[in-house]
Amino acid sequence: MAVARRTSRDIRSESRLIVVRALLAAGETTRNELAEATGLSPATVSTVVGDLLKYGIAAETGLIGNGIGRPTTGLRFNADRGRVAGVYVEDKYLEATVFDAALGRLATVNASAETPVEEADDVIDWIVRILDTALDRAGAERGDLLGVGVLLPGGMQRPVKSAPTPGGIWLHLDRLRDRLGLPVVVDNPLKAIATAELWLGAGRRSGNIVTVSLGYGVGAGIVQDGAVVRGATDSAGEWGHSLLVFDGRLCQCGRKGCVEAYIGALGMRQTVAELDPGHPLLDGPDGYVFLHAFTDAAEAGDPVAVAALDRTAHYLGAALTDLVAVLNPEVIALTGWPDFPACRERVMPIVWGRIRADAPGSAAEDLEIELVGRHGMEGIAAIALERFMRDVGLVTTRVLPAL
Amino acid sequence: MAVARRTSRDIRSESRLIVVRALLAAGETTRNELAEATGLSPATVSTVVGDLLKYGIAAETGLIGNGIGRPTTGLRFNADRGRVAGVYVEDKYLEATVFDAALGRLATVNASAETPVEEADDVIDWIVRILDTALDRAGAERGDLLGVGVLLPGGMQRPVKSAPTPGGIWLHLDRLRDRLGLPVVVDNPLKAIATAELWLGAGRRSGNIVTVSLGYGVGAGIVQDGAVVRGATDSAGEWGHSLLVFDGRLCQCGRKGCVEAYIGALGMRQTVAELDPGHPLLDGPDGYVFLHAFTDAAEAGDPVAVAALDRTAHYLGAALTDLVAVLNPEVIALTGWPDFPACRERVMPIVWGRIRADAPGSAAEDLEIELVGRHGMEGIAAIALERFMRDVGLVTTRVLPAL
Repeated sequence: MAVARRTSRDIRSESRLIVVRALLAAGETTRNELAEATGLSPATVSTVVGDLLKYGIAAETGLIGNGIGRPTTGLRFNADRGRVAGVYVEDKYLEATVFDAALGRLATVNASAETPVEEADDVIDWIVRILDTALDRAGAERGDLLGVGVLLPGGMQRPVKSAPTPGGIWLHLDRLRDRLGLPVVVDNPLKAIATAELWLGAGRRSGNIVTVSLGYGVGAGIVQDGAVVRGATDSAGEWGHSLLVFDGRLCQCGRKGCVEAYIGALGMRQTVAELDPGHPLLDGPDGYVFLHAFTDAAEAGDPVAVAALDRTAHYLGAALTDLVAVLNPEVIALTGWPDFPACRERVMPIVWGRIRADAPGSAAEDLEIELVGRHGMEGIAAIALERFMRDVGLVTTRVLPAL
Repeated sequence: MAVARRTSRDIRSESRLIVVRALLAAGETTRNELAEATGLSPATVSTVVGDLLKYGIAAETGLIGNGIGRPTTGLRFNADRGRVAGVYVEDKYLEATVFDAALGRLATVNASAETPVEEADDVIDWIVRILDTALDRAGAERGDLLGVGVLLPGGMQRPVKSAPTPGGIWLHLDRLRDRLGLPVVVDNPLKAIATAELWLGAGRRSGNIVTVSLGYGVGAGIVQDGAVVRGATDSAGEWGHSLLVFDGRLCQCGRKGCVEAYIGALGMRQTVAELDPGHPLLDGPDGYVFLHAFTDAAEAGDPVAVAALDRTAHYLGAALTDLVAVLNPEVIALTGWPDFPACRERVMPIVWGRIRADAPGSAAEDLEIELVGRHGMEGIAAIALERFMRDVGLVTTRVLPAL
């Protein structure tokens, strides 16, 4: 990577992305309001708005008068510029969502398979079928799509040596692109959730955000200076596989003592087992089902579940404190089990206590933690939209991967 | 913090900083070579070079001919544009270094006190005296200085509530500025070392760097997309106070299990004590003296020191793997004890083994680790130079603090 490859074209690109995001956030607005919201000069905003009108991404809404001064022309994001789709694919589960161009959700269709879908062509067939169904429900057709974003679980890194994804589809996305005749982008959930937060969430008021996803697996997305941090091989954010305990529990990844081995679903199960190896929760299923059963049991007052949840909250607080120490974000946006009704009141005070006690210096003083619920699906749709703007020449941002 | 406050002025500023750094790196060069090195367009480079010539930061060196085509005008950084000074201050130790404008070191003077210098005015007197001596040795006077950078140890954060620095001088830098009649900038070693690496080290080929300082305390500096990451309250990089062991050893900071409590000087001493509570190394002094005695003992084959050093190398490898997992840098630049002759051959293979085994996916595949030796002093001088360029209107970058 060169020290810098910025040109005046990149600068224009950056201004355009900033205005696009501000327009999306604003609903109906004006050029002056956009200048105020973005900090860009009125002249720059006017130029950018001109470009966005030309490409149909912005639309004028007629004159707005506030009774003071002369009326100005209203602006909005043109949601009907087209549609974008997000596809989430696991080996036995598939989901397709169709959004309007303003990232409003129009239709979601999901499907599951009895046995893992293993062949790449079968996975592609499945994606195309479910996507077409979702388009149909949204009253749209393939030709309306500006792009398709595919969300693949797991640590997706380049160069691809192994493909831990159904049917090795990550290696065959060109076939999907050819079948659909549409631009396809692919990314992993950590980057997609960070992008969703940047476009639709805390990114509207801060450029320095960490998104934290807590589910079966755990991970983070990093937004720095208004851009998603990707890292040298696209694997930044693997906080779930940073250490909580040197030489501690064996993690699924093979390393010992990872954060995920304590606050992922399997980790919580192990905490229950350490407290009471014969606890009935351990007879039930794993994953999300366990997460709900476990947190419900804690809410109902089961003493082992309460103790295990409290201990998990301490683990979470400690692991978040590490992010605060290293990255010192303005906002942490949490998605996952801490937002379960059974957890909110019990977990967050413990987490905050740990962060306040242990964060270095004043690092946690102005910190906000949001329990959000931004989805990777919105993020991958935003990435597909960004890709569309790149294809028409409006932005020059690095969008991954080049398909 | 607003989503963005970028204007075309910021863009020009960024181009100028990029060209200044490339010019500093190049020695004698040409406009075309600068365009190639920076990726900026030849037109942008010409404009920027014009600005730099105007402010005396660049100088022309006459015609350069390579025998092919017509000769072009050579360029260099104008080291004689002025001088910049760095001052490092602890309660019983002070160092002042005078650099030329191209950050070449001209003279260093240091001094130590028997008892801590505690009053702010006494600290300021001391700084002025030692700085004047250093200027004298460099054949310069105060009037030659473009600026002075003060390097303060410890976790310096804003807003300042406590002043863990000699004489609370951090709270009284305006007095130092008034005494010297010169612009003064202040920063902590983590940010300064990251800046030095960005300006003079790995920043010449990568924009995605983590600097790691290992000494009495430990910490990191983060360079992302060619800029030093500061964080919401200027405390990003406090990796030394992220966890290695949940509820582990008590750290000096009050938290349990911090990285520093295992790979800082006190941590290594504790590792020796755990292996052999009666070991003679424990009778000697602490800090750097201990570090040298300890690593020398390991090199001489003392079995306890060897075992403790190996264990420390595992701790270091694990803690660096966390940085790789979360930030996925292209380069880690290490400064400190791993570069001691006694450590190089023994420590780094263990560190690399741990990183290769434990880093997620392909995160460590293209990673480089440099044992450098970039100093905070060069970094604080670079920050002072950046501040000078800001004061004359060449750059708009945020430079801390506003004094």
